[in-house]
Amino acid sequence: MYELHPKLAQDTFSIGEYELSEVRLMNDTRYPWVILVPKRFNVGEIYQLSEEEQQRLIYESSFTAQQMMELFSAEKMNVAAIGNIVEQLHLHHVARFTTDVTWPLPVWGIGEAQAYSDVAAKAMLSQLRRVLDDLLI
Amino acid sequence: MYELHPKLAQDTFSIGEYELSEVRLMNDTRYPWVILVPKRFNVGEIYQLSEEEQQRLIYESSFTAQQMMELFSAEKMNVAAIGNIVEQLHLHHVARFTTDVTWPLPVWGIGEAQAYSDVAAKAMLSQLRRVLDDLLI
Repeated sequence: MYELHPKLAQDTFSIGEYELSEVRLMNDTRYPWVILVPKRFNVGEIYQLSEEEQQRLIYESSFTAQQMMELFSAEKMNVAAIGNIVEQLHLHHVARFTTDVTWPLPVWGIGEAQAYSDVAAKAMLSQLRRVLDDLLI
Repeated sequence: MYELHPKLAQDTFSIGEYELSEVRLMNDTRYPWVILVPKRFNVGEIYQLSEEEQQRLIYESSFTAQQMMELFSAEKMNVAAIGNIVEQLHLHHVARFTTDVTWPLPVWGIGEAQAYSDVAAKAMLSQLRRVLDDLLI
């Protein structure tokens, strides 16, 4: 049965759920960073999803990426399924700016996450829920 | 009109073409590393492709990832659209091993690419063309 990996649960806040994926905010103020976690048991690679699920994933992913790009007036979206540390399939969506701390490098494995304050987390979650609302169930 | 970005051309070898994407081998012996470049003009983000093209991209991507996983007996595939340096949309597929030089970190922006010898490049391209043949046009 599907259950969110404890490490992902610990590092993120729940934004809500799409039809296929849980939608979660990474607890790191350095970048607007949302992960999608398909609610499927024992799946570590995109190709292990059914063809229909893969199509749904790219649909949910592209919607998320475009909404984040517009909300944050970002310069680039980084979209990635890595999973070298947490094996449960999760798709990163990171809004990037030429002024951010690691630009133009990717964000993974560089520096330390900067946690949100309670107030800042609430504000961020509320903004994201507003723009992602169309696919949230 | 679509044209492969010169930096991508310089860093890779041609494996062939799928219906949507060019299929190219990164010139870096540290990892089996294939990029897909959708043959579309002025597209930097997956969400800028049409819905049909997005579905085709994930189909081509998953086929590539699964074939690479099996060919190389890899432990993990890393699949990513980053594009902070080369803006033309290109999707990375990197076969990872717990014994590779940067595991468990991602591969981007770490260390220096190790170029293939002519003989090694030919062997690698031939292996990849064999397993990717079903989608090559």
